[in-house]
Amino acid sequence: MTLPDLLDRRERAFGPNAPLFYNRPLHLVRGEGCWMWDSDGNRYLDCYNNVPQVGHCHPHIVAALCSQAGLLNIHTRYIHELVLQYAERLTGKFPVSLDRAMFVCTGTEANELAMRIARHASGKRGVIVSDFSYHGNSGGLAEMTTGLPHPEPLADHVRAISLPDPYRWEGSEEELIAEHLRIVDEAIQSLEDAGMGVAASLFDTIFSTEGLLDVPHRFVQGLAERVRAAGGLFIADEVQPGFGRMGDAMWGFAATGVTPDIVTLGKPMGNGHPIGAVVTSSILADAFTQDALYFNTFGGNPVSAAVGNAVLDVIEQEGLIENALATGNYLQQRLREIANDFACIGDVRGRGLFAAVELVGDGKLPDPRLTKTVVDSMREHSILISKIGPRDNVLKIRPPLCLGTDEVDLLADTLAAVIGDLAA
Amino acid sequence: MTLPDLLDRRERAFGPNAPLFYNRPLHLVRGEGCWMWDSDGNRYLDCYNNVPQVGHCHPHIVAALCSQAGLLNIHTRYIHELVLQYAERLTGKFPVSLDRAMFVCTGTEANELAMRIARHASGKRGVIVSDFSYHGNSGGLAEMTTGLPHPEPLADHVRAISLPDPYRWEGSEEELIAEHLRIVDEAIQSLEDAGMGVAASLFDTIFSTEGLLDVPHRFVQGLAERVRAAGGLFIADEVQPGFGRMGDAMWGFAATGVTPDIVTLGKPMGNGHPIGAVVTSSILADAFTQDALYFNTFGGNPVSAAVGNAVLDVIEQEGLIENALATGNYLQQRLREIANDFACIGDVRGRGLFAAVELVGDGKLPDPRLTKTVVDSMREHSILISKIGPRDNVLKIRPPLCLGTDEVDLLADTLAAVIGDLAA
Repeated sequence: MTLPDLLDRRERAFGPNAPLFYNRPLHLVRGEGCWMWDSDGNRYLDCYNNVPQVGHCHPHIVAALCSQAGLLNIHTRYIHELVLQYAERLTGKFPVSLDRAMFVCTGTEANELAMRIARHASGKRGVIVSDFSYHGNSGGLAEMTTGLPHPEPLADHVRAISLPDPYRWEGSEEELIAEHLRIVDEAIQSLEDAGMGVAASLFDTIFSTEGLLDVPHRFVQGLAERVRAAGGLFIADEVQPGFGRMGDAMWGFAATGVTPDIVTLGKPMGNGHPIGAVVTSSILADAFTQDALYFNTFGGNPVSAAVGNAVLDVIEQEGLIENALATGNYLQQRLREIANDFACIGDVRGRGLFAAVELVGDGKLPDPRLTKTVVDSMREHSILISKIGPRDNVLKIRPPLCLGTDEVDLLADTLAAVIGDLAA
Repeated sequence: MTLPDLLDRRERAFGPNAPLFYNRPLHLVRGEGCWMWDSDGNRYLDCYNNVPQVGHCHPHIVAALCSQAGLLNIHTRYIHELVLQYAERLTGKFPVSLDRAMFVCTGTEANELAMRIARHASGKRGVIVSDFSYHGNSGGLAEMTTGLPHPEPLADHVRAISLPDPYRWEGSEEELIAEHLRIVDEAIQSLEDAGMGVAASLFDTIFSTEGLLDVPHRFVQGLAERVRAAGGLFIADEVQPGFGRMGDAMWGFAATGVTPDIVTLGKPMGNGHPIGAVVTSSILADAFTQDALYFNTFGGNPVSAAVGNAVLDVIEQEGLIENALATGNYLQQRLREIANDFACIGDVRGRGLFAAVELVGDGKLPDPRLTKTVVDSMREHSILISKIGPRDNVLKIRPPLCLGTDEVDLLADTLAAVIGDLAA
């Protein structure tokens, strides 16, 4: 079928509002490593997708999936060794206080379960999130979402706070942190005044949807202290930074110096297979399951456990955390070099294999139009990236962790050429 | 590892409250058709699981899974033909008014999305469910759950109504229906009085958790009329009856004569692979997605679509709906024969390959102790069933749809022997 025919067919099947990337959408048929191919055989460098975290269709993971799918795929009300092994191995990658994994299917289900545990433990109801965040597609999470359009108003138990953004702050870092911790204090006070108290804060530890902000770690520490002092739990959403992307550690929270009370996992966990998890302390988990018969039909099935184990195998055996650091540092270096040449690049941010490039005009004026043009132009040059942030002016570069320096050069050279063309 | 070692290891990994079937839990390692094998090579007839709907590890489905997992596994913001084909094929199995499929990963996600659509369309907030129901494990659904223990109180926007149960009603069917429609009227009035109105009713169309009650179709029709007259939507949860289990149709709602406004799908849809969907009208879906940027990372990915298509292939090619009817009728016949011999069998209910056997003492007094003993004793005879219902006294028989008459005989003969031993 031609692309227009496919688009017609898609609109009939999914309606006019189903999101699709790029002015000229892609009809993809194959993936391998950091590359994808369309139906005409054209090859694209994937610098966007974190679901195929260790590379598209990794043979070790596909083999584990197929092998177990042919043997047994059943739930956790029978004993299966693979899921025990996976739970032990996964919790072994966390600080000792986080000794319990509860398996679900998606990041949405993980954040839902985390909120249930937090409310149960705290006996409180309020939640603090950031003012341009997204944590999932359920009704309860939609009522906490400020980073996507949706019809549900912000729930009365939610406070969405402004995050410190060093790039857009004129004063000292000390003042930036103090100002935003004051906002945290206000949010807590407001939830206390409303009689709901603070059950939890829920933050992505790399602040991706917010624009991959360079939030000072001392702010995160102050936030966690304040939430805990109010009787709430500190929940880290690791759906984006988790599984080694940051290069310095397996999890995004490590760099902040705060060990969360609950961690939620999703997207990259199964390299495309639907797996998610809540990792927390046995104290919190067991107190919750004593009162709640929590059961997740597909969560922790042997096929998902086999896939989860295989993802950990690949991360370890191929040294992907080390690669995220080395290749990520090189990516940052190349992006900063390009930034020196173009006034429209206001800031380059990121850690490991997650980079953000903020595009602006004079006086840091956000340039969402240029940002969209760059993303589409990169796609025309067969390199796939996207954009994020409340002003829609931040390039989002989040490739599979197997990206090498040659691919970084291709990405960076193409970006320089594209911006050069547009700036000319 | 020995079973005690495995149980110790499991308790360390999952804590003391992780649900596990049977007094002597099973350590299963392989499945094929209606059979599973434990680590000692013992074989069990699976008369419980509807997740492996078309049979454990069906080779056609495993082949489709492996083939696509090796090619590409990515989300729906790129075009892929398999998911279009699956959406077209799936909606083709519904009445014409239900022309839109939205893919998610689990029944929980499907019911969450259905509630969001219903609230958006109706502008109302109230929900009517049954008084011993379960529709998922999110926080929002926990607040609607009365069929499982959990710490969340019933939300103030939820009314959990008593269902008509002909087995436990002394009067006429006419009176039974009238009495329970009066309860529906009261629930609606109460939601109106509270200023919330009725956004939706949400019912499993075979009323499984409630004990597979033989709810009169005219009650369902009256319920739908009343909910719609109040401006709400009628949501059918097909996670248990769907995909041909009822034998008379692909979906449980067909027999009731009510075409739902929204249908939710889960468990059997991917034969173990985590897939779910909301099927509704394009009018409702598009109105919602105009205001909500709904995106589900894993929902509708090419691997899930390949698996979903393969499940439909097997249902069609192996005549599994016809088998559910023929074998299901034979199962009902055998169970009724057994019921004639034992006073402790108060009622035999069900449709297609879903059967319930209610165990009672004198005066229909529920016998949960006997029920548990029968379930465990059947397991000792290598036949896997479970129990349901608010009184915990109903045997739940819900095998994969490939069950044959020989297996029905094995199940029925064993059940007769087990009950005979216990009654002796």
